[in-house]
Amino acid sequence: MTTRIWTAALAVIGDEILSGRTQDKNVAQIAAWLNVQGIRLAEVRIVPDKTDAIVEAVNILRARNDYLFTTGGIGPTHDDITVDAIAAALGVGVEYHPKALAVLERYYTDRGGLTDARKRMARVPEGSDLIENRMSGAPGIRLGNIFIMAGVPHITAGMLDALTGTLEGGLPVLSRTIGCWVPESEVADLLGAVERAHEGVAIGSYPFFRDGRVGANFVVRATDAALLDACIAELTERLEADGRIVIADGI
Amino acid sequence: MTTRIWTAALAVIGDEILSGRTQDKNVAQIAAWLNVQGIRLAEVRIVPDKTDAIVEAVNILRARNDYLFTTGGIGPTHDDITVDAIAAALGVGVEYHPKALAVLERYYTDRGGLTDARKRMARVPEGSDLIENRMSGAPGIRLGNIFIMAGVPHITAGMLDALTGTLEGGLPVLSRTIGCWVPESEVADLLGAVERAHEGVAIGSYPFFRDGRVGANFVVRATDAALLDACIAELTERLEADGRIVIADGI
Repeated sequence: MTTRIWTAALAVIGDEILSGRTQDKNVAQIAAWLNVQGIRLAEVRIVPDKTDAIVEAVNILRARNDYLFTTGGIGPTHDDITVDAIAAALGVGVEYHPKALAVLERYYTDRGGLTDARKRMARVPEGSDLIENRMSGAPGIRLGNIFIMAGVPHITAGMLDALTGTLEGGLPVLSRTIGCWVPESEVADLLGAVERAHEGVAIGSYPFFRDGRVGANFVVRATDAALLDACIAELTERLEADGRIVIADGI
Repeated sequence: MTTRIWTAALAVIGDEILSGRTQDKNVAQIAAWLNVQGIRLAEVRIVPDKTDAIVEAVNILRARNDYLFTTGGIGPTHDDITVDAIAAALGVGVEYHPKALAVLERYYTDRGGLTDARKRMARVPEGSDLIENRMSGAPGIRLGNIFIMAGVPHITAGMLDALTGTLEGGLPVLSRTIGCWVPESEVADLLGAVERAHEGVAIGSYPFFRDGRVGANFVVRATDAALLDACIAELTERLEADGRIVIADGI
C-alpha cells in the first residue's frame, strides 16, 4: 500500500531563540501535534527578526511542503515583523482584518483600550483568515498553506487546539519504544538488520547516561500498526537472544 | 567604529527532534557559548537523518557563515549518517582517523572492546581533525569551518568546552535586561523610539504570563558596553516617566 505522505515545515522566528536567551518549546509541541494530524514535520528553520531571512525561509518552505507553520513575531512591538515579512514574501499588501479588530476591541475593553500599538496585532497579509486564540487576545493567521502562530508556547498550544482536525493529513505515524541498559554500540548491527528486514519502518536509537549507567531507547516508527508490532516483536526477540534484558515501553 | 561580525550556523540533525520525541537543548547551549566567543548564531536548520537534507543544509550554511556547527548523527548505529553526508556535501571520501581509533580502543578496553560498530565512530571526512570529547569516547570532528558535534547535550557541552577560546571571533554581544509588570502593548511605541535613538542596539520585548499577571522583559543587546548602558538608562527613565515600575535585571 502506498500512502501519500503529508509534510509540514516550521519557521521559528525570533532573535531570542538564536541568542540562547529563550529555550524553544514550539518545535517539539508542533511536531507532536502534527503527528496526530497525520502530518510529518519535515524541516525546521530558526531565523532572526530580519525581513530577508524570513522571506527566504517562507518562500522555500511553503513551496516544498504541504503546510508551513511559523511561530513568533506577531506581537505589538517594533521587533514583531512576521506579518509584514510574510506579506512581502507573497507579494501582497497588509490590511487590518475587521474580525481581528473586533476581537482585540473586546479583549482590551477592560485592559486599557485598543491603542495603536495593539491595533498592529489586527494586521494581516491581504486575503488572510484568522486562527482562534483561546488564551489571549490577538489571533493567529492563516493564508493559503501558511499558518502564522504566536511565539509564547501556551498561546501556540491554544491555536493548535483550534486547528485540530481541520487540516488534511495522511495516516498518523505510530511509534513504539523499547529500551535496554546497554551501550547502543553493542547492538548497532542488530538494529540495522531488523530495520532492513521491515520495509516501511524506521528505527531510531537514543542513547543516554543515567544513574551512572549507559542505556538506550529504540524507537520504531511506522504508519502501519501491524508492521510496527511485528518489528517490535522481532527486535525484542533478537535482543533477548543476544542476552539483553528488554524493557517494554522504554526506559 | 565598524566591527566585523562573525557568524555561525547550526544544523541540528535528527529524526528524534522532528518527531517531537526529544526536546532539543543544543540550540540554546551553542548560542550562549558562541556569544561568549564573540560569534553570533545567525541561523539554525533542523533536518532529518537523510543524506539529501543534510547535504543541502551543510552546503548553504557553511558558505554563508564563518562557522558551521552540526549536532547529532555521529554515533555507532545505522541511523548515524552525519559523517557520510558531510563528506558527500564536500565531495571528499571517508577515512578512519588513526587518533580517533586509538581513543576508542583505549575507551572501550574495559567496556567490551572495539567492535566494528564502535569503529564507525572513528570514521571522518578525509582531512579532518578531531575535537576532544571530555565526557565519553567518540570525539567530535573539525574540517575547515565545519564542527561536527555529538547530539547528546552534555557530550556537546564537553566538546564546546574543548573548543573554548580557539575560534576567532569579534566583540561579544553584551546584553542587559529590565522588566515591568506591564502588557508590552502599552509600551510598544516607547520601546521602538528608544531603539531608534540608539544605533547599534537591538531591543527585544518578551512578554509572559505569570501568577495571573502579565509582564514583559526588555532585553537590550549591543557589542559596545557604554552604548548598552546608555540605552538601558534612557529606557528605564522613559518607562518610569510613563509611570511604570522598572525591575532591574528583569523579572
